[in-house]
Amino acid sequence: MKQKKNEDALVARIARALAGTKPSALDCGLGDDAALWRPTPGRQLILTCDWFLEGSHFLRHKHPADAVGWKCLARATSDIAAMGGQPRCFLLSLALPGALAGRWLNQFLSGLKRASQALHCECAGGDTTWENKVLIGVTVIGEVRRARAIRRCGAKPGDLIFVSGTLGEAGLGFRQLRRGRGMARPSNHALRKHLYPEPRLALGAWLAERRLASTMMDISDGLSTDLARLCKASGVGARIESVSLPRTARLPAAEAEGFALHGGEDYELLFTVGPRNAQRLPEKFHGLSLTCIGSITKERRLVVETGQGIQTLQPGGWDPFR
Amino acid sequence: MKQKKNEDALVARIARALAGTKPSALDCGLGDDAALWRPTPGRQLILTCDWFLEGSHFLRHKHPADAVGWKCLARATSDIAAMGGQPRCFLLSLALPGALAGRWLNQFLSGLKRASQALHCECAGGDTTWENKVLIGVTVIGEVRRARAIRRCGAKPGDLIFVSGTLGEAGLGFRQLRRGRGMARPSNHALRKHLYPEPRLALGAWLAERRLASTMMDISDGLSTDLARLCKASGVGARIESVSLPRTARLPAAEAEGFALHGGEDYELLFTVGPRNAQRLPEKFHGLSLTCIGSITKERRLVVETGQGIQTLQPGGWDPFR
Repeated sequence: MKQKKNEDALVARIARALAGTKPSALDCGLGDDAALWRPTPGRQLILTCDWFLEGSHFLRHKHPADAVGWKCLARATSDIAAMGGQPRCFLLSLALPGALAGRWLNQFLSGLKRASQALHCECAGGDTTWENKVLIGVTVIGEVRRARAIRRCGAKPGDLIFVSGTLGEAGLGFRQLRRGRGMARPSNHALRKHLYPEPRLALGAWLAERRLASTMMDISDGLSTDLARLCKASGVGARIESVSLPRTARLPAAEAEGFALHGGEDYELLFTVGPRNAQRLPEKFHGLSLTCIGSITKERRLVVETGQGIQTLQPGGWDPFR
Repeated sequence: MKQKKNEDALVARIARALAGTKPSALDCGLGDDAALWRPTPGRQLILTCDWFLEGSHFLRHKHPADAVGWKCLARATSDIAAMGGQPRCFLLSLALPGALAGRWLNQFLSGLKRASQALHCECAGGDTTWENKVLIGVTVIGEVRRARAIRRCGAKPGDLIFVSGTLGEAGLGFRQLRRGRGMARPSNHALRKHLYPEPRLALGAWLAERRLASTMMDISDGLSTDLARLCKASGVGARIESVSLPRTARLPAAEAEGFALHGGEDYELLFTVGPRNAQRLPEKFHGLSLTCIGSITKERRLVVETGQGIQTLQPGGWDPFR
C-alpha cells in the first residue's frame, strides 16, 4: 500500500484491518513502494481489475458498507473463477470522502476482510486518496495450471450450454433493494445474492482441471448479453430453451424468465461442454445445480425457444443503474 | 479488458490503440474475462497500483490528454523502479465522460501507448465505465530476481544517502503550468519533467542487481516527506546537507532549495548505500547524476545542515492539489 501524505495513518489502519493470519506468498506487502509476491512455479497468472463506483455500481444509502467491501472483491474474483483459476492476492484502490473514514470504513474493511478470507485472496497493497464519493478499483491476481485456463473462444456447434445455480435472483434482489426504504438488509435469498455474491471458484477450477468445458465466462451483465459475447468470441450462435432456464420460484414464470435472461450480477458460470464430456457432468456440484439450457449453433445468432416458437434473443443485459 | 455493455466498441478501440507489436508474455489479453500471463521462472512479482484522478492528480484543462496517458503509467511504473525491478504489464481502469470519448481519448491512448513502449510494459487488460470526470487507476506488474528487490527498511547509521537527477524541477514545472493560461506545453525542461516524468528503471535495476543499495524508494511526494518514510521504515534518522542538494539552476538558490526539499513528482530515486559500496557508485549513471546528499543517523530525526546551522527537517512534501 503506497503511503500518501496525510494518509499514512489511514493506510496503517487498512493494513491492520486486512492483515492475514495464514502463511503468505507475500514477501513484502503494505507499507513499501510495492508488494513482492512469489508466483507458484508452472502456473500462469490471471490478471483482472474491476471498477466499483458509488452511484454506478452501488448506492451509499442503500448498500451496507459491509456488503460494498464484500462485493467489490467477490465480483472481481468472479473473473478468476471464469478462467478456471484460483485467486491469490488483490490490490485495493480506494478513494473516499473524509466523513466516511470512521464507521463506514470500518464496516467496509470488515466485509472486505471476510471476502478476503473466504476467497483465500490476501491484500497485497493498494493506493488511497480522498474524493467526494467512494471510488473503488480492485485488481485480483490469480493462478491456473498452464494451458488449463478456460477462455471465451472455442465453443463449437453442437456443444451444450450450461449455467450454474439459479439465474435472475441477484436482479430480483436489487429490485427489492431499490423499492425498499433505507439501508438494505440481506433478509432473503435474492437480496443476499445481490449483496453478497459468491464467485463459483470451486466449480470453475474443477471444470478447468478436468478439461470439461470448451469455453467459460461468468454472468455479470445478464445471460443474454454475456452469452452474446461468448458466441462472438467463438464465432458461433446459440439456441436457448426457455423452459430449461433455472429461474427463481418467487416470481410468476414469465417475469422470472425475464430476470433469468437479462438480470445481471448473478456471478454464476456460463460454460459450454462437448456432447461426450456432458455425460461426465454431475447434476449438482457440491450442492450447486448445473443446468443445460441449450446448445451452440453454427448460425451466428442467438435464439430462444419458447412455447410460442423461436425468437431472436436480443442482448438485454440489465444494468441496474442504467 | 472486461467488456461492459454498450462499451464493447470502446474496449475494442482501446485494445487496438494499445496493441503491441513485440512478442508478448500474454497468452490472453484484452477481450476475455481476464488476462493470462506467464511469469519468468525464478522471479518475484512486484505489484503496485496508483490512482490518477482528474482534479486531484491532474487538471483536464491544463494537462494535455497525451501527458495524462503518459504520466498515469510512468508514475505507477516508478514504484517498480523503486524496488529495483522491471515492469512487465499493466491493467488500466478507466472511467470517463462520454464527451471525452473522441479526441481526448485518442490523445490519451497515444500518450499511454508511447509510455507502454518506452517502459516495455504491455497492456494486459482493464475495465472501462462512464463517469462525469476522468478516473484512472493503473496496476503495474513487474519482476525482480529473487531476493534482489530493494525495500525501504534496512538503512543503517553511517549509510550515505543518494538521489538521482535534479530535485524540484517537476514542482517548478507544475507552478509554471498553474500560472500559465490554457493547456500546458512541454516548452522547457521543468514542464517536461512535470508532464512526462521518466521512471529511473535502469538505475533501479542496476543498483538491485549489484546489491549496492541498502534501501530505496522513489521521490513522489517530495524529499522531506519520502525520506521521513524511509527513515521510519528503517528505524533511523537522517542528516541532509543543504548545499549538496541537486537543485534547479533556474531559480534563486533559496527558492530552488525549497523545491528540492519539498517539491513532489520528480520520480527520482532516493537510496542509501553503505560506506564501502559508495565507492563503487559512479558520479553519473548513463548521464544521470547520482548525488550524495547526507547520511543516515542513529538518532531518529531528520535534520538539514544549512549555512545557518542545523535545523529539523519537517515533512513538507508539496502536494500540488492540497
